[in-house]
Amino acid sequence: MIQMAVLGFGTVGSGVVELIDQNQDVIKRTIPEGIFVKHILDLREFPDSPYCDRVTHDYQDILEDEEITVICETMGGKNPAYAFTKAALERGISVCTSNKELVAAHGPELLSIAAKNNCSYLFEASVGGGIPLIRPINACLKQEKITAVYGILNGTTNYIITRMEKAGLSFEASLKEAQEKGYAERNPAADVEGHDACRKIAILSSLICGKTVRYEDIPCEGITGITTTDFSYARAMNMAIKLLGVCRVAEDGSISVRTAPFLVRENHPLHSVQDVFNGVFVHGNMVDDLMFYGRGAGKFPTASAVVSDVIECAKNIGRTVEFVWDNEIVPLSDPMNESYRYFVRVSSAEAAKAGEIFGRLSEIRFEGMPEDEFAFVTPKMTEGEIRKTLNCFVSASKEQRIRLLED
Amino acid sequence: MIQMAVLGFGTVGSGVVELIDQNQDVIKRTIPEGIFVKHILDLREFPDSPYCDRVTHDYQDILEDEEITVICETMGGKNPAYAFTKAALERGISVCTSNKELVAAHGPELLSIAAKNNCSYLFEASVGGGIPLIRPINACLKQEKITAVYGILNGTTNYIITRMEKAGLSFEASLKEAQEKGYAERNPAADVEGHDACRKIAILSSLICGKTVRYEDIPCEGITGITTTDFSYARAMNMAIKLLGVCRVAEDGSISVRTAPFLVRENHPLHSVQDVFNGVFVHGNMVDDLMFYGRGAGKFPTASAVVSDVIECAKNIGRTVEFVWDNEIVPLSDPMNESYRYFVRVSSAEAAKAGEIFGRLSEIRFEGMPEDEFAFVTPKMTEGEIRKTLNCFVSASKEQRIRLLED
Repeated sequence: MIQMAVLGFGTVGSGVVELIDQNQDVIKRTIPEGIFVKHILDLREFPDSPYCDRVTHDYQDILEDEEITVICETMGGKNPAYAFTKAALERGISVCTSNKELVAAHGPELLSIAAKNNCSYLFEASVGGGIPLIRPINACLKQEKITAVYGILNGTTNYIITRMEKAGLSFEASLKEAQEKGYAERNPAADVEGHDACRKIAILSSLICGKTVRYEDIPCEGITGITTTDFSYARAMNMAIKLLGVCRVAEDGSISVRTAPFLVRENHPLHSVQDVFNGVFVHGNMVDDLMFYGRGAGKFPTASAVVSDVIECAKNIGRTVEFVWDNEIVPLSDPMNESYRYFVRVSSAEAAKAGEIFGRLSEIRFEGMPEDEFAFVTPKMTEGEIRKTLNCFVSASKEQRIRLLED
Repeated sequence: MIQMAVLGFGTVGSGVVELIDQNQDVIKRTIPEGIFVKHILDLREFPDSPYCDRVTHDYQDILEDEEITVICETMGGKNPAYAFTKAALERGISVCTSNKELVAAHGPELLSIAAKNNCSYLFEASVGGGIPLIRPINACLKQEKITAVYGILNGTTNYIITRMEKAGLSFEASLKEAQEKGYAERNPAADVEGHDACRKIAILSSLICGKTVRYEDIPCEGITGITTTDFSYARAMNMAIKLLGVCRVAEDGSISVRTAPFLVRENHPLHSVQDVFNGVFVHGNMVDDLMFYGRGAGKFPTASAVVSDVIECAKNIGRTVEFVWDNEIVPLSDPMNESYRYFVRVSSAEAAKAGEIFGRLSEIRFEGMPEDEFAFVTPKMTEGEIRKTLNCFVSASKEQRIRLLED
């Protein structure tokens, strides 16, 4: 029997323990000896839990138990998860994690410690919740020059956006609902300001280029500036606004990465990715477009991804599941040189000036739109150009624009 | 270096050879020694091909070459592919195939021969073209009770449907276009009558239940009966018509499988799967809905899936990549007991009768609809009931109905 431990008995950690119990019979089709959660590490006691007898407060109990071959790190945060993970891998214990913060910060180092100790560091649950994504990229697309990976990577903000769009709720009301449903944390900054999506696109970007894309280097905008009026304009254009992480590899090999809200046209498959669902596009030079879709958040979907990694470890005891992810840092290309079309709102008084600057524009209108406003989509231009141009308007700051996603 | 052979130098086979050449540098990131196509088996000569010196007409040249560790079988059809595959596996040579006909007919037998000889039989390209689908199901979802798998599995018919829907072309004109673009074969029966989708859903159904679902047991309808008028009605309901393969596992474990056109609501992600793209939904008890999306046909997407299998073989020389797919045949549940809502067209004269039979119905109308016609959606009822009921109408045969996809 595969004996394992879970670090952190929160939402995901308890999901892992419960999933392994509930689906033990299907797991045994692949791992005939079965998987057993022997230890649960948490600072808290859980007197009412059926698993209370397995709870320990001392990590040494787990590290020194020679029966343990796999640890699930579902604590989140860099510390003490980093030290705990390192200590386990150094002893040859594989670690499966949902902790994108740690993976984005220390992925290559932890992978190389795992390789040295004939065990694995797996992180399927760190991006895209329950969607099989990391393993398909790592095991099914090695014949491809991947030139783009982009998508909806944060379930919480996609839920908020969906509620603003479909139910006309304000940002604040949607956020409150997301918190009540357990999708958003009490401090929602990491989600709504785009940092979580940014970490995830950093991980995906690193995997497709085999080197390290630092999430601190990625230009990052969240959804806090989007209003219900923006959604109405989007609908008038048959588009949806989605928070995307986008990574593109240019012909010369230079890499641009960005997290920001984008306008997505109606017949793009990301358009219908709603609620807490995530959708991730991958473009390869031979296979063309792929999309992976599923629940990007939630107890059991995320736990499912963690347990899929546990099974992978169990099938590879004594071996390392390899990743190509070097710690060499990739310099990103200058974000000011990226080109997009932009959705822009200015005052009616400045409509004529907009026409002078951008050429002939079609006005975007909807029933009940703000009076004295003129909204339009610019021709394709660089970030540098649009910033400079928008400075000519009194009524638009350089931030008041939404990029259009082009395929 | 991994030395391999390709059987059949048609569209997919030549795609495999060209892909390996063009993307050799990226392949070497995973297989540092590289992959080399040493032999190409075909009845024809290819004097103008840069690969003409590798062409052989004698399979023994390949079988007896001890350097060969992997064979790509891209011939299609059962014979001689079956005998060739068996002979290779018996010698411990792994086989990667795009041949759904052979996989559907002999999958479990060939897998067990591979297992006995410490090599692998892989068939990623047999379903969903370039989409990573078979490996994710086999390697990422073993912790799930999968209760449904369904989707658009045939790129050719989806292309035809898209052209009928978007460009208003007739079935015949769309088919002709698909043939000109190389998506449809000269004899399109396997595609348009649903047999190809049927084989693919048989393979997927077998993988999720671990036993054999025979494609001959699956009720199969194609798209030859769908008219542009049906598409207009679908649009009036904000739905699209898609040819789906559907497999559902009921709570009691009984399995129902079907291939037929379905009406798909607008906000379902399959709705926006167009042209030759495929989209496959998988529902697990923990992860909920997943979708895998990409090109379901075409030279390089399909070749990409074949080569991903070659890389998997190269990483597992001397080992078997395992599948749970027993040759025990699964009895499917009686298709007459499946329940759906149905879209039905009768004559205006029979509208009153329809109301009597089905209760209050809302008529589906569109500008320019056929005069003297009454179209509606029934309440949920079994296949048996709808057949019996439609027999009461002079103007509707039991075949004139389209099922609604429900999630």
